[in-house]
Amino acid sequence: MKLWDKGTSIDKKIEHFTVGNDREIDFHIAKYDIEASVAHAKMLQTIGILTAEELEQLESGLADLATQIENGTFTIESQFEDVHSKIEFELTKTLGEVGKKIHTARSRNDQVLVALHLFYKAQLGDIKIKTKTFFETLLKLAETHKSSLLPGYTHLQVAMPSSFGLWFSAYAEVLIDDVYLLDAATKTVDQNPLGSAAGYGSSFPIDRDITTKALGFSTLKYNVVAAQMSRGKSERTIALALGSLGNTLARFAMDICLYMSQNFGFISFPEELTTGSSIMPHKKNPDVFELIRGKCNKIQALHHEMVLITNNLPSGYHRDFQLLKENMIAAIIDIEAILDIFDYAIQQIIVKDVDLNDDKYKYLFTVDSINNLVVDGMSFREAYQHIGSQVQNDTYQPNLGKEHSHIGSIHNLCLDAIRTKFPK
Amino acid sequence: MKLWDKGTSIDKKIEHFTVGNDREIDFHIAKYDIEASVAHAKMLQTIGILTAEELEQLESGLADLATQIENGTFTIESQFEDVHSKIEFELTKTLGEVGKKIHTARSRNDQVLVALHLFYKAQLGDIKIKTKTFFETLLKLAETHKSSLLPGYTHLQVAMPSSFGLWFSAYAEVLIDDVYLLDAATKTVDQNPLGSAAGYGSSFPIDRDITTKALGFSTLKYNVVAAQMSRGKSERTIALALGSLGNTLARFAMDICLYMSQNFGFISFPEELTTGSSIMPHKKNPDVFELIRGKCNKIQALHHEMVLITNNLPSGYHRDFQLLKENMIAAIIDIEAILDIFDYAIQQIIVKDVDLNDDKYKYLFTVDSINNLVVDGMSFREAYQHIGSQVQNDTYQPNLGKEHSHIGSIHNLCLDAIRTKFPK
Amino acid sequence: MKLWDKGTSIDKKIEHFTVGNDREIDFHIAKYDIEASVAHAKMLQTIGILTAEELEQLESGLADLATQIENGTFTIESQFEDVHSKIEFELTKTLGEVGKKIHTARSRNDQVLVALHLFYKAQLGDIKIKTKTFFETLLKLAETHKSSLLPGYTHLQVAMPSSFGLWFSAYAEVLIDDVYLLDAATKTVDQNPLGSAAGYGSSFPIDRDITTKALGFSTLKYNVVAAQMSRGKSERTIALALGSLGNTLARFAMDICLYMSQNFGFISFPEELTTGSSIMPHKKNPDVFELIRGKCNKIQALHHEMVLITNNLPSGYHRDFQLLKENMIAAIIDIEAILDIFDYAIQQIIVKDVDLNDDKYKYLFTVDSINNLVVDGMSFREAYQHIGSQVQNDTYQPNLGKEHSHIGSIHNLCLDAIRTKFPK
Amino acid sequence: MKLWDKGTSIDKKIEHFTVGNDREIDFHIAKYDIEASVAHAKMLQTIGILTAEELEQLESGLADLATQIENGTFTIESQFEDVHSKIEFELTKTLGEVGKKIHTARSRNDQVLVALHLFYKAQLGDIKIKTKTFFETLLKLAETHKSSLLPGYTHLQVAMPSSFGLWFSAYAEVLIDDVYLLDAATKTVDQNPLGSAAGYGSSFPIDRDITTKALGFSTLKYNVVAAQMSRGKSERTIALALGSLGNTLARFAMDICLYMSQNFGFISFPEELTTGSSIMPHKKNPDVFELIRGKCNKIQALHHEMVLITNNLPSGYHRDFQLLKENMIAAIIDIEAILDIFDYAIQQIIVKDVDLNDDKYKYLFTVDSINNLVVDGMSFREAYQHIGSQVQNDTYQPNLGKEHSHIGSIHNLCLDAIRTKFPK
Repeated sequence: MKLWDKGTSIDKKIEHFTVGNDREIDFHIAKYDIEASVAHAKMLQTIGILTAEELEQLESGLADLATQIENGTFTIESQFEDVHSKIEFELTKTLGEVGKKIHTARSRNDQVLVALHLFYKAQLGDIKIKTKTFFETLLKLAETHKSSLLPGYTHLQVAMPSSFGLWFSAYAEVLIDDVYLLDAATKTVDQNPLGSAAGYGSSFPIDRDITTKALGFSTLKYNVVAAQMSRGKSERTIALALGSLGNTLARFAMDICLYMSQNFGFISFPEELTTGSSIMPHKKNPDVFELIRGKCNKIQALHHEMVLITNNLPSGYHRDFQLLKENMIAAIIDIEAILDIFDYAIQQIIVKDVDLNDDKYKYLFTVDSINNLVVDGMSFREAYQHIGSQVQNDTYQPNLGKEHSHIGSIHNLCLDAIRTKFPK
Repeated sequence: MKLWDKGTSIDKKIEHFTVGNDREIDFHIAKYDIEASVAHAKMLQTIGILTAEELEQLESGLADLATQIENGTFTIESQFEDVHSKIEFELTKTLGEVGKKIHTARSRNDQVLVALHLFYKAQLGDIKIKTKTFFETLLKLAETHKSSLLPGYTHLQVAMPSSFGLWFSAYAEVLIDDVYLLDAATKTVDQNPLGSAAGYGSSFPIDRDITTKALGFSTLKYNVVAAQMSRGKSERTIALALGSLGNTLARFAMDICLYMSQNFGFISFPEELTTGSSIMPHKKNPDVFELIRGKCNKIQALHHEMVLITNNLPSGYHRDFQLLKENMIAAIIDIEAILDIFDYAIQQIIVKDVDLNDDKYKYLFTVDSINNLVVDGMSFREAYQHIGSQVQNDTYQPNLGKEHSHIGSIHNLCLDAIRTKFPK
Repeated sequence: MKLWDKGTSIDKKIEHFTVGNDREIDFHIAKYDIEASVAHAKMLQTIGILTAEELEQLESGLADLATQIENGTFTIESQFEDVHSKIEFELTKTLGEVGKKIHTARSRNDQVLVALHLFYKAQLGDIKIKTKTFFETLLKLAETHKSSLLPGYTHLQVAMPSSFGLWFSAYAEVLIDDVYLLDAATKTVDQNPLGSAAGYGSSFPIDRDITTKALGFSTLKYNVVAAQMSRGKSERTIALALGSLGNTLARFAMDICLYMSQNFGFISFPEELTTGSSIMPHKKNPDVFELIRGKCNKIQALHHEMVLITNNLPSGYHRDFQLLKENMIAAIIDIEAILDIFDYAIQQIIVKDVDLNDDKYKYLFTVDSINNLVVDGMSFREAYQHIGSQVQNDTYQPNLGKEHSHIGSIHNLCLDAIRTKFPK
Repeated sequence: MKLWDKGTSIDKKIEHFTVGNDREIDFHIAKYDIEASVAHAKMLQTIGILTAEELEQLESGLADLATQIENGTFTIESQFEDVHSKIEFELTKTLGEVGKKIHTARSRNDQVLVALHLFYKAQLGDIKIKTKTFFETLLKLAETHKSSLLPGYTHLQVAMPSSFGLWFSAYAEVLIDDVYLLDAATKTVDQNPLGSAAGYGSSFPIDRDITTKALGFSTLKYNVVAAQMSRGKSERTIALALGSLGNTLARFAMDICLYMSQNFGFISFPEELTTGSSIMPHKKNPDVFELIRGKCNKIQALHHEMVLITNNLPSGYHRDFQLLKENMIAAIIDIEAILDIFDYAIQQIIVKDVDLNDDKYKYLFTVDSINNLVVDGMSFREAYQHIGSQVQNDTYQPNLGKEHSHIGSIHNLCLDAIRTKFPK
């Protein structure tokens, strides 16, 4: 059953190819289609297209479907093209003529648009909450391990002293930048597109302010053509916000995998968090962190797909846009699972004692040694040459005692200041 | 059940996250895992690790599983981590100790690698055949419609005369360039990786020439570390070959969508190949071609994902590689479906009579007019100025009769020469 | 001259390869390096590392260099590795020992980081202003042409009535979403990274609050490791904000190129804004819009480069980051030029009278016709069938008079509401 | 001076924006434009459009310009739009009317197309030669260091024994896969496009076989529309071939950077190949390899740019294509420099003695130990459990003596077989 059925049969091969797996994907937005339909019906009643009684019937029919969705008993059978056709069919089956009236003054494009905006907004909210949880976990770990030193690397070469406190809270603070993008993405979808119909508005005297308020949108996407252009725009924006978050998480996972290598040996995890090998009985592999890294990299790649599907298409709806949903929704589900598992796993980290007296780390402290000379009055460039020649002649003796006390340094992590920066 | 089970339980959340949807994806390579296992067993018998009797038992057990796969009765239950665990479990259940011996001198990495090489090689072969079919269809259409003229555009501006013959056969000839890449991708996977074990070979005296011949590979990936590096390399290479093919098909679909627009009106399709709108009863939309375009653009994006998952990882296996399979296999399935439906749909194209006398096309022939003057002795630059001022003064009169006879031009399409270029 | 010279000569080939074109690129950030050096020197005086007199000397030396930069007389000769080496050399040449002291308690990484943050912040501010200018131009054009109707397309098929007012103001409103991302990018760079030294802070008791205030940053990047991670993070974030803006502009340019095609003929531009062909004297090509589209697409691609250069690198500085600057800065320069030329060119647009009575547009009004029946009491689905059969039987008569009056529709553009949405 | 000058002045701002940096970029293809012009002139004489004398004059004029290009005295002044305008201007200045005749039966699009095909073909040839040189260097290093063992890693965890011989020759063998793509790209451009004029052929009776032979192309791009579609197709294909090569080189550089870290300490390089730090006097950083990695990653990103600029554009020339040249040519220059410097630097590698008796490597040999038990008759799974429990109880004793003798393993590198695989 199609909303546009005109009595001509469509070629079966073509139908199979064009419908694809829309039905399965649509489950994720079914709930929001109902929500938007309720708001639309209310508005239709206000402008006199539905009677109060008709509205009541529709509300009750939609509430039944909402319950089915919540209970998991809602299905989209193969004769329906998508969730929207199914819902209209059910309403009409139950309510008769009234059911058909729900589609007045809106188009399927409208329905998809508004349902996606609502879905995306809700998911972005969840992702922000999960990011906050992970952020707090990292700050706690930074506090717990603030006294454990680590070698700091530049160019993957031993460089200067660092600490677990710095390491954990660095990733926490970087997450804040990702939240700026999540917030920008939220603003992009927190605009009511309902009323754009097929992308050019309609001749009905609909009242878009009513649906905006009913659906809890902060504002409208006023221009109906602009509303239609949200298809693609929303997905590209969300993809880049998720990709940015994915980048941070992937990089952290990369550090973890490296630090778990026997050649670093800075951290480990309980055996039940690692996996083994089919031929090497000694292996305790950090698969969970490799998969976090890999999945985050996949999420980083998503933006490219969203761009390519939509690029250089003239304005107006194109069926290509249907293809945006599948991997977008999969990425949203993935990033949520990643945030959960990362938060769960990182709390079980075992921070090892790193022996900074080991010969390979002895030059970690050359800058501190130079600084001591500078504080005693030498110019920086001279002190650099001085310690440099000690290194050259192998007479350099590290001096581990120095405190780093400035804002954001090893012994002054400013965790509260970082916590305060996290956007509301 | 895991091939690497060591008696320690793995955390359930971690297990769920790491296994993902591997079981479903593995169905696509199950058949090839069996094939490679048979070859491996034969080799083990030749080098004396299996007796002739043990080999026979294993061959029979594997043949049973192959039949199950073919019949669709093979399943991978949730206690198995992947297809490889399941197959080894079944063999051991049926054959006892002998079943366990199949894993001698190979690793699961080995199994995945060789199964993927076989799978990819087979699919690339199929894709080449389907591309050839589509290529032939386009040449046939070019022949059929070689006398139908079209306006040719540059900068989307009316430029010079073209024809349906040129248009169809242009896409045919461009497909040949895509086949060069399909062939390069085939070469990349047509190398036996079996024997690399976990990526560093083994101390068993295995004979890799035997498995190479048994599996029909053209050569070996000799170096075991290089063999391991095929993970990622294969996928990136195939992704770019499919992406290149996708680019050609998407561009063709773009032309079709444009030419179907009322503002061009060059072609149409039977109504049953088009779809309608939920609010506009007059719509006959080219959804199938839009979805071809969109899906091809998705396929073009795949390479980026394959790169991002693998980039900047040091050599040696990483679990991230597991994530390459899912969208790679989906893209292979998609491109095959696209080639089928495109070949099916394009044959039903309705080529319309384009009236080149229409006012908007009148300057199509200015170059021909210039050329006439040149043939009569004027220099090209002078003739250009001459016709240019006619255009400026609105006195230009087109002259439609001119033949374009050189190689590859409107009246000399060289379809046989193009057909001959298609790589064997 | 290198800041890290240790007396050992570096291989010439290696030097040539590693320095690359850094000197040219560094011109763009020279001014900001001076600015940050002044702030750093002030702070050093406050904490007692410089005397008031030394500070005065450094300020005067830096002011001289700032003047040279402004006047265009500043040069970076080939013996200098980068702008930072050159500035330190000049200070030392002029001021002797005092010149060397400027590098106390900071590292070259620090200098690059803070200069880039300042540069990016300034450029993002400029880009936002130029975007605002273009936004206002579009709103003005929407107002001017609000009564000129256009066919609206879906699937590139004639769909429903639209207007130039809708078209212009749609792009204006979409720009607002791009500004959300520009603002997020600005927040990302509007954090003082100075003090991270080589990425791990230092043992000097520097006061980072002083430099934060002096440089006008809204906040600090507290954690020194997080500050270092801004390399890459800033560039990826800016790239995606510019890419988003580029996407909107490219899509608008695509519409323009299409609408200029003789087959649409909705708009034109004065001849001096178009370019010609070397063989077709009639051509007036929209090259400027094609180049806007192409350049915007290039800018969209930038994010991918920024990701690939940095992806899967463990934390800590890597020399790879040096490569982020070149195309990032080029893209910033490009987008500013694009905004300028687009704003200049679009104001010269010639909006043509589109004859909606033309036969190819006659079904534009079917939805309005349906709506009329609905308003008269028919259910939407019935009215759809009714008009649908008129279309089928070719008895449909369009009815052009209908007003679209709801928020954001043809006759109610809400330009002021859109103007108000533009972020401060 | 423009080939399409019609006497109307073009807006200066527009001209500046549209010409861009074409003049500089065009230097790279100037030589090939001359070469193609000579072939075109010869053909024009054969078909009677030029006299023998005119041909001689043109050949001599073109030869003079070729000499100027070779000597570096050729310039493209700012009044010329591109190299093609400049060459035609010079010919006309020197030869009068005859100079103007060279443009007969071709278009500027033609000229750009054929010059790019020639340029790309030449560069791909050079890149293949340089790749071969690097390949041979790696095989030599593999031979030299075949007895030096290395730990092999999976999941960045110590896994099984490997060797420098395996490591070097692995990258050599992987390069062969990259050459398959270079060869495919070469085939794509080794087709004569000359004669497509503006993309639709011409009414002149040109003989494209003559220019094909004169320019040394293996075949023609027959269809003139297909020839035009090479714009973009060539660049996308070359970009992906270079990107594939870049991926291999970047990954090798990643290994090098990791192995140079003090935590691995497997290799080092002479001090003059490393660079220092402005604050840490002990640093000897592997900048050259980091820049190789970064530049190769940039090259990997290029394909995306080539796709985005061209995607979803309908057939026929668009000015956007002009933007393909800049970064394409830069990438070609870069990859050649990378291959040179990598070949130069890698020969100076210092392979260190890795002590595999170190405690962190002791489980490297568990698989060998298992295999010994299997050879003595135990099933693999039992042997795995047996050694596994030794590892668990900390009673495992490694057994280093085992040879790996199968094809492609540590003690049987098959370097000659790999050498033979390199495509002719």
